[in-house]
Amino acid sequence: MRYKITFSYDGTNFSGYQIQPNLRTVQEELNKAASYINQKKPTETTASGRTDAKVHAYGQVAHVDLDVSPSLEKLKRAFNSNLPEDIHVSKVEKVTEEFHARFSATSKDYLYVMNIGELIPTKRNIVYQYCRTLDIEKMKQAISYFIGTHDFRAFISSEDKREETTRTIYKAEITEKNDELYFMFSGTGFLKYQVRNMVGTLIEIGEGKKNVEDIPCIIESKNRKKAGKTAPACGLYLVKVDYPIKY
Amino acid sequence: MRYKITFSYDGTNFSGYQIQPNLRTVQEELNKAASYINQKKPTETTASGRTDAKVHAYGQVAHVDLDVSPSLEKLKRAFNSNLPEDIHVSKVEKVTEEFHARFSATSKDYLYVMNIGELIPTKRNIVYQYCRTLDIEKMKQAISYFIGTHDFRAFISSEDKREETTRTIYKAEITEKNDELYFMFSGTGFLKYQVRNMVGTLIEIGEGKKNVEDIPCIIESKNRKKAGKTAPACGLYLVKVDYPIKY
Repeated sequence: MRYKITFSYDGTNFSGYQIQPNLRTVQEELNKAASYINQKKPTETTASGRTDAKVHAYGQVAHVDLDVSPSLEKLKRAFNSNLPEDIHVSKVEKVTEEFHARFSATSKDYLYVMNIGELIPTKRNIVYQYCRTLDIEKMKQAISYFIGTHDFRAFISSEDKREETTRTIYKAEITEKNDELYFMFSGTGFLKYQVRNMVGTLIEIGEGKKNVEDIPCIIESKNRKKAGKTAPACGLYLVKVDYPIKY
Repeated sequence: MRYKITFSYDGTNFSGYQIQPNLRTVQEELNKAASYINQKKPTETTASGRTDAKVHAYGQVAHVDLDVSPSLEKLKRAFNSNLPEDIHVSKVEKVTEEFHARFSATSKDYLYVMNIGELIPTKRNIVYQYCRTLDIEKMKQAISYFIGTHDFRAFISSEDKREETTRTIYKAEITEKNDELYFMFSGTGFLKYQVRNMVGTLIEIGEGKKNVEDIPCIIESKNRKKAGKTAPACGLYLVKVDYPIKY
């Protein structure tokens, strides 16, 4: 039986999604819970993709094959009672074996949250605290240059040596509420550090260190050094993974 | 020189506001920072009142007398660089010696936040997670019975033996946003556990265990056993302390 698991996590105390020896990871916790539920047989879960250390998720998705088939409500409860309090399963669905959390995904939504007012201690690990003045109008103009199909090589981790770095962004916009800025991105997929590097570049435009029209030139350059600094992980959320086909 | 300090904190890792031996408290951290700033002389701060373990604050107020008089901006920075990351000073003002953070306060605003949707791990310590169905309309009707001058003995900690338990509540209302309920209370002052016991009683009305019209009877009874359970501390915020006179 294949199941689709939708879950959220607080990335603060995790060394990222992917299993690493001697480090606390989301994947390891999810596998442990799945194995326990699956009659204690070693069981692997497969997520839509990784997230970096300290990055959060509202709607991450994984699939898992289980030999047991309790009701979906019971399965959800079983996951939550076997997971630590910083991971929560919000939905469990039965899917066919055609469903693959990573390969069946057609798009993802990411949110980056930045507080530009007084620091709020209860939010210190879940928003990026920024203390200087920003020209938000310029950032709003600049972000729209990311929409479309582009080679995002200039915005990825310089360690990332993969060949295919072209992605499509459907939506990229900044909204404001009280003292918070919300950067929203939807696209076919995002490369390692891509969202944080796009946000870091937009911040430099807001600071006047770069111009609105620099974005297309930076994309064109394919040179990581032309883009801005990587924005801190704590402001980033994987919000949603889309699977338009019914499995 | 007397200074008025406005500050916020994440109560999660504190055993409450008030100093207690061998426990981490907000007051001790604030006194340590004040002492360091005040040429390392032992210096006490006086707050508007205590908050319980795990209760948060956005706008707590304290006063402190310092022998030094740097600019207010410098003083704010000095506090923040000497405080742990779960306390943040948002404002420092010079006041006359007439000003007393506790005795000059005329009213306080408290907020209680409850999530009635899926648990959100990033908010697990800063909202109360509630999983059953509630009749919110009934809770909204019931909360207005708290407005006015009443003896709130039925809603205070049973350990609290003080004689004067009459307080005035100016405002008491519930608003909803997405899956969150916000209980807002403004009043001349609140007794230990009062807000959490009022919220706990309102929850029992929402659950159908008590009726809307029970509130005036519970107030009248002055009997703690008639009121509901104490709602968890993590949903409570001291939002604001009012000082209408200029000092």
